[in-house]
Parts: sequence; C-alpha cells; structure tokens
Amino acid sequence: MSAPDADTPHCKVVLAGTIAKSLLAEVAEGLKQIERKPLLVGFLSSADPAARVYAEWTGKTCRENGFDFFLREVPRDDLEEALITANTDRAVDGIIVYYPIFGNRQDQYLQQIVDVSKDVEGLSHRYIFNMYQNIRFLDSHNAKKSILPCTPLAVIKILEHLRVYNTILPYGNRLHGHTITVINRSEVVGRPLAALLANDGARVYSVDIGDVQQFHRGQGLKKKRHEVVEMPGWTLENCLPVSDVVISGVPGDSYKVPVNLLREGAVCINFSSERNFSPEVKEKASIYVPAIGKVTIVVLLRNLLVRSPVSLSTTLQRSR
Amino acid sequence: MSAPDADTPHCKVVLAGTIAKSLLAEVAEGLKQIERKPLLVGFLSSADPAARVYAEWTGKTCRENGFDFFLREVPRDDLEEALITANTDRAVDGIIVYYPIFGNRQDQYLQQIVDVSKDVEGLSHRYIFNMYQNIRFLDSHNAKKSILPCTPLAVIKILEHLRVYNTILPYGNRLHGHTITVINRSEVVGRPLAALLANDGARVYSVDIGDVQQFHRGQGLKKKRHEVVEMPGWTLENCLPVSDVVISGVPGDSYKVPVNLLREGAVCINFSSERNFSPEVKEKASIYVPAIGKVTIVVLLRNLLVRSPVSLSTTLQRSR
Repeated sequence: MSAPDADTPHCKVVLAGTIAKSLLAEVAEGLKQIERKPLLVGFLSSADPAARVYAEWTGKTCRENGFDFFLREVPRDDLEEALITANTDRAVDGIIVYYPIFGNRQDQYLQQIVDVSKDVEGLSHRYIFNMYQNIRFLDSHNAKKSILPCTPLAVIKILEHLRVYNTILPYGNRLHGHTITVINRSEVVGRPLAALLANDGARVYSVDIGDVQQFHRGQGLKKKRHEVVEMPGWTLENCLPVSDVVISGVPGDSYKVPVNLLREGAVCINFSSERNFSPEVKEKASIYVPAIGKVTIVVLLRNLLVRSPVSLSTTLQRSR
Repeated sequence: MSAPDADTPHCKVVLAGTIAKSLLAEVAEGLKQIERKPLLVGFLSSADPAARVYAEWTGKTCRENGFDFFLREVPRDDLEEALITANTDRAVDGIIVYYPIFGNRQDQYLQQIVDVSKDVEGLSHRYIFNMYQNIRFLDSHNAKKSILPCTPLAVIKILEHLRVYNTILPYGNRLHGHTITVINRSEVVGRPLAALLANDGARVYSVDIGDVQQFHRGQGLKKKRHEVVEMPGWTLENCLPVSDVVISGVPGDSYKVPVNLLREGAVCINFSSERNFSPEVKEKASIYVPAIGKVTIVVLLRNLLVRSPVSLSTTLQRSR
C-alpha cells in the first residue's frame, strides 16, 4: 500500500453494499435454523413506477438469499380486503406493501391493516409505540423482539458496523457519549431515528426546517427512554460543530450539509435518495457513507427472520 | 300561519342547534342511569387559537349538560407521557386531544396513543377499522358499541333527525334506496362518512378534486359492507342530478356547490366551516342544514356516555 498523497484527506468511504454483505452473512446463519423458506408477500397497488422497481428489487433480493417472494398486484380499492385475507393465511410469513397508493392519509390507515405478526416493515402502531417508548420486546420473557422500521434500523446497523456502537458498553447504552445530529424529522425516518439513537444513549439533535429538538436520556442516561426538549434559537451552526456523527436525509438535490460547520473527523451518513453531502465532505469526515438503500433491504429480510416462529441465532437476538 | 308568498321557495332550513337540543334530551336520559358524573379530560398542546376556543366550548357544553370537564395544558413534547398516564387513571372516563399539535404525521401517531376505552372521538385504528368494515360492536355479545368519529356521526344523527333514515327498514339498512353525494374525501370526515352511509344502505358518490368513487353494498344490499368502485370520467354533473341528499365539506370559502345541478327537493347539508352552498340552494332543496358544529359536540358527549361502563338506555343502544 502506497503512502497517501499529502493532499489526500484520510476519509474512509464505506459503501452500503459492503455493510449489506456482512449483514447478509448473519441472515444466512439465521435462515439455517428455520424449517422452511420464509415467504414474503408484496402488495403492489401503486401507480408509482418507483414502487414497482422497489417491488422487483425486493423479489430479486429475497430469491437470491433463500427467501420466497410473491408479488400480488391488487386494485387499490381491493387492497384492504386482500391484506385482511393475507393476515390469516398461514403460508404467508411477512407482508410488505408498496406505497404511495392513495398518496394521502388513507395510506396510513392501510399501514395499520397489516397484522402485527406479519409486519416486517415495522409500521404497526404497536411497534412504533414500543420504539419511541424504548420497549424492545413484545412479551415479558423477552422472547419476541419488537420490530423496528427498516430505514431507521438500517442506519443503526450501519453505525454498529462502523463501531460507533461500542460493544464494551451494555446493550441499550452503546451510544453513550456520542452527540449525533439528524437532519430531517419526518415520521417515516428522521423522528424515529432520532428516538432510537437517543434511546441507545446518544445525545441527538433533531434538525428540521422549523426548529431544533434535543432527544436525550439525561445525564448518566438515568432515564429509561429519551425525552424531547425544544432548543429555541438553535440552528445547524450550534449542532454540527459538537456532533461526532451527522446523519442527513433531506429530500431533493438542492440541500447540502454545510461542510465548514462539520467537526473534524465526524462520521457522515446520507439517507436521502439525493446526495446531501457535497464531495468536500471528505476533507472533514473520518467516515462517509453516501447511501444506505442496500442495507435497508437486508434489514427487511432480517425483520422477516426475526418474525418467524422458530428460535433464532443468538447473534440476531443480541442486537437491534 | 300565513300562506307563503308565491315566490318563496318551500325549503325548510334546519339549524344544528335544534337537532342538538333533541339529542341532548337523549343524552340527559342516558346520564340518569350512570352512577357518577362522567369526567372528560381535554389535552391542549396546540398553539392554534382555534384549538383553545374549541377546548373552552367543550368544557362549557360538558358542564351545562351534567358532565365534568378538566382541561390539561401540556407542552407538546410531554403529551405522549401525559396521555399514557391518563389512559390508566380510573378517574378519567374520556379523553379528547385538541389538534393540530405538530401539524404533521406525528399528530396521527399521537391519536393512536389514547386508549380505546377512553377514546370518545373515535380516532383509534380499531374503531376506524370497524367503521369501514361495518363491524358495529367490540364484543361478540353486541354489548359494547364501537365508537364512531364525531363529525361523520353528527351527519348521520342529522339524517336520522331529518327522517332520511327510514325506521320502517331494519337497523343497518335504513338508507336503502337513497343516493347521496359527499363532496370531499378527507380521512377525517369525507371518506369515513361515505363509508358509513354506504354501510347503512345508501349508494354514495364520493367526490374529490381528482375523481369520483361509488361506495355501495350492491344490488339488494347483498354485501355485508360497502365496496368502492372508481367512476372514471364522472364529475359532479353525473352525481348531483341523481342524488336526493348532497353533503358538502370543502374547506375554504371559494367553493360553492353548483345549485343548477341539484335535484329538485334534495336534502343539502354543509359540514365545512365555510358555507359550501350559496343562498340560492333554497330554490331547489327541500331541506337545508347550513352547519353541523353544535351537533358534533353533543355527539362527543354521547360517545362519552356510550363508553361508560354502566348499562345505557335502550334509546342509545338501538341507533348509531
């Protein structure tokens, strides 16, 4: 290995594909302990071409990794009934629905139709509630894990891979000492992600267009779950210089995280479909993850495995 | 009574206050059978001045009609915990939360925090699901009614008062033969209302900016619940001339239902905060209800009573 050029910054770019590969090995291990191939059924009622592309991509990833996948195309007005039928179909292990369908709040209604036991996307209110409340299991014996939504969980898996999660610390507190800025506070990714990171011990600044909020379990992580505190007058200028991890997911290609505000050596992760970091991020960051999609889809398979009724490898049980 | 002027149309304008009064008599009857004053707790975390006005109005209506009301003002970041506490507080019979709070999907998350047994607004997924699925009770003995959301239920109570519901027909089919146009398909009022009316036997045209859908239980009401069929190419021009009831709830003051398309003698109801019908509606309509707010708040009290654990007057149990 040749010495790097004096002008080349020492930023390690980690691609989602690399992280996905190591997670897939874990999933393959878990799959060996399952009696039959788990069946994921996808429901496509969306006219959005991106939904079809994602559906086909799910199918391909499933089949390549030892899962069965069946795509059902259903007129949107019949979807509710089709989901109710799939909920009680013993052949179906997991259900994924491709949104947007109606593109309004009716989609959120439909998300709650999928039975908790078949929801591999982690969109059921019970799962979301447990996530915010830092309740990690569905039962009192800690045998059934509460599923986490795929995209926020993918970010966590990435941070585990990057050793930002410190396994020296007890499970549940492994981000203690980290300050993380999450840019975007959508209900789908940004807010649940901020809550998950804070529940795992980080001090999180959640930045949205209107304001900054701090999610934190308090000094010494004395609280069982995070609390949210408004930070009046705060902007990215306050958050970024004190954050060792910066995670951004602003939709659209016009937004760029101001590199000049980044702390030297920060870990930077982009979960927007557009690049929220300009190439200059490498001048400042120690690690940069430009996209997360490939991890998200593996996390979906992992959720499907966790939901399956047979006992799982301890590897899967010991982490998020 | 003097004979009406030859030029005066015979439209009966029915005010919400009149209907509210007759419903309040029913509620007073039900209240007599309850051992203690039911307590409704309102949670105000909204900066919207309209939310405060509505909260104060709820309190006034409660106290004037034999209910206890307590308003809790809670910072929005503490609301989730406050609701969880109220859920298990035996002194609290019902919970109402004043929205908007965050003004985004976080508000829908919060709606699901209120326990089903204390939700008097009918916003829990279980209630909404039952409503769409035409499941009217929570238990197999038909002892516990599934709560309906207040505004759609207020419209139904108005249609019962106006004798559009025909009590000669069996309960559940009392709108058989009616064709109803509902203008607006929001998840909050328009779509649930269309579903409720269709589940009660009507053929409903649900009209939104983008399209028209028909909600119907099929010829002879053979289906147990409504089905939704898209009506490609249809507009109000197709719906209004065949509708004997027209219900409109388009927000904003610029929208007016085209009176020229109304069927002679139609029953017209406005549930928008603005007037969706111009004064000329009286030239065509047989009955016109210009606003429904006063009925909505009585329906809230009725829901609180229905949720109370003591047996209720048969009057309350025999209808929606």
